[in-house]
Amino acid sequence: MQVQVISSVNEASSARFHHKTAIIIDVLRATSTIITAISAGALCVVPAETVMEARAMHRPGDLLGGERFCRKIAGFDLGNSPEEYTEQVVAGKRIVLTTTNGTRAIHKSMRADYVLTASLLNAEACARAAIDLRRDVIILCAGSHDEFAIEDGLCAGLVLDKLQSLSQVAIETDDFGTAMLALYRNRSNRIKETVLSGISGRRLLKLGMKRDIETCTAIDIYHDVPRLNGDQLTRI
Amino acid sequence: MQVQVISSVNEASSARFHHKTAIIIDVLRATSTIITAISAGALCVVPAETVMEARAMHRPGDLLGGERFCRKIAGFDLGNSPEEYTEQVVAGKRIVLTTTNGTRAIHKSMRADYVLTASLLNAEACARAAIDLRRDVIILCAGSHDEFAIEDGLCAGLVLDKLQSLSQVAIETDDFGTAMLALYRNRSNRIKETVLSGISGRRLLKLGMKRDIETCTAIDIYHDVPRLNGDQLTRI
Repeated sequence: MQVQVISSVNEASSARFHHKTAIIIDVLRATSTIITAISAGALCVVPAETVMEARAMHRPGDLLGGERFCRKIAGFDLGNSPEEYTEQVVAGKRIVLTTTNGTRAIHKSMRADYVLTASLLNAEACARAAIDLRRDVIILCAGSHDEFAIEDGLCAGLVLDKLQSLSQVAIETDDFGTAMLALYRNRSNRIKETVLSGISGRRLLKLGMKRDIETCTAIDIYHDVPRLNGDQLTRI
Repeated sequence: MQVQVISSVNEASSARFHHKTAIIIDVLRATSTIITAISAGALCVVPAETVMEARAMHRPGDLLGGERFCRKIAGFDLGNSPEEYTEQVVAGKRIVLTTTNGTRAIHKSMRADYVLTASLLNAEACARAAIDLRRDVIILCAGSHDEFAIEDGLCAGLVLDKLQSLSQVAIETDDFGTAMLALYRNRSNRIKETVLSGISGRRLLKLGMKRDIETCTAIDIYHDVPRLNGDQLTRI
C-alpha cells in the first residue's frame, strides 16, 4: 500500500486523489470537532467551504457551526471547539460546518474513492478503516494559512505508525511521509507540548483557547471514523 | 534568532529572503559537490541556472560541471559527483556548475543579505557561520522534482540542531523547522539508511551511483563554508 502525505491544502491538486482513500487531517480543530460531533451522536456533518454556502445549506432543525479567524461566526449556533459539540447539543442533528482550512481540505479531496477524516482523537480507527478500504492512501494535512502545521504532521505520523503496525501488506510512503513518521516517533511522549509550540497552538493559546488544545491532543479516545457520503460526513 | 525552513524550491518566494542569511541545502548532490570542490582548493563555484547559461559563463581555463537527469551534460568536463572534484582536478580553477535543483535554489535566494550552502559534509561549519552573520536565517531545502526530499530535511534538522547547541541567543523556528529537527533527531544514527530510502537516494542507486550516497552522508568532515559573493561561491 502506497501512502502519500501532503503538507498543506495549498499543495494538494485534486487529480492526485483519483482512485485513492483520502485521509484529511486538521487537528486544530476541524477534524477533531467532526469526530467529537459524530461520536456524540450527530446525524452527520456537512462541510461547507464558505460562510455563505453554509447558510445556504442550512435547513430547519440543523445546527450551523464553524469559525473564521478561530472565532464563532456571527449568527451561527456553534463555533469550532470540540467541547461545544456535546451529546446534549448535537445528538440526532445535521450539522453544517465551515472552517478556514479543514472543510476546504475535505472539498479538495472529493475526487478520491473514499474520504475519511482523522485527528489525534481517532487516528488508529482511521488507519484500520483505510486498511479495510484496500486503496492507496493520500493523507492531506490541512495546515494553517496555507502552511504546514506541526499538529497535522504529528497526526499524519501517528496514522502512518498505525498503518505500519496494523497492515498485513507493506506500507510504502514518500519522503514527506517518512519525515512525519520520524516526527511522530521523536515527539510521541510530548504531543501536547509540541502542538503548543506550533503556530496554531500559540494562536489558540493567545485567544484563551488552551482547553481546545488539551481536548484535541488526547490520543485514540474515539473509535468512529467520519466518512464522506455525497456531501455528508457520517459514521462508517 | 528566527529560523524558517522551506521544504522545496517550489515553495520559495524571493521576497522572503530579504535581510536574511539564506542556507541552501541540496545534499544529493549540488551542495555536497560545491563544498567538496571548495575544500579541494577550487577558486570558486559559479552556479548557473541553465546549461546554456553555464556555457555562456564559461571562460578559458574554467571547468564546466553539472547534471541533467543525474547524468553529466554532454561536452561538460565534470558531472555532479563530489568524487570527481578532487584537488588534482579543481585546485585553483573556477568551476561553472549547473544542476537541476541546487543551483536553481541558490538563484532563488539571491535577495538574501548572505547566501551560504550547506550539506551533511559541512553542516556545523555552516551553523557557526550563520551565527556569526547575526541575521535571521532561512533554510531552503532544494528538494527533488519540486517536492520535499528527505536528505535535505535531515540536513536542515542537523543545521538546526547545531544552531541550537552553538548559539548564545535562543533559536526559534517554524512548524516545518520543528518537524525537521525531530526528523534529524529520530534518524541521526541511521542517516545513510534514511537517505537511501528516499526518492533521490533510490534514483541514484538505480543509476549505479551508490558511492555518491556514501560520499554525501558523511557528517561534518569539512570546516569550510561556501558563500555567495556576486555570482561566485567562495570559501568564507
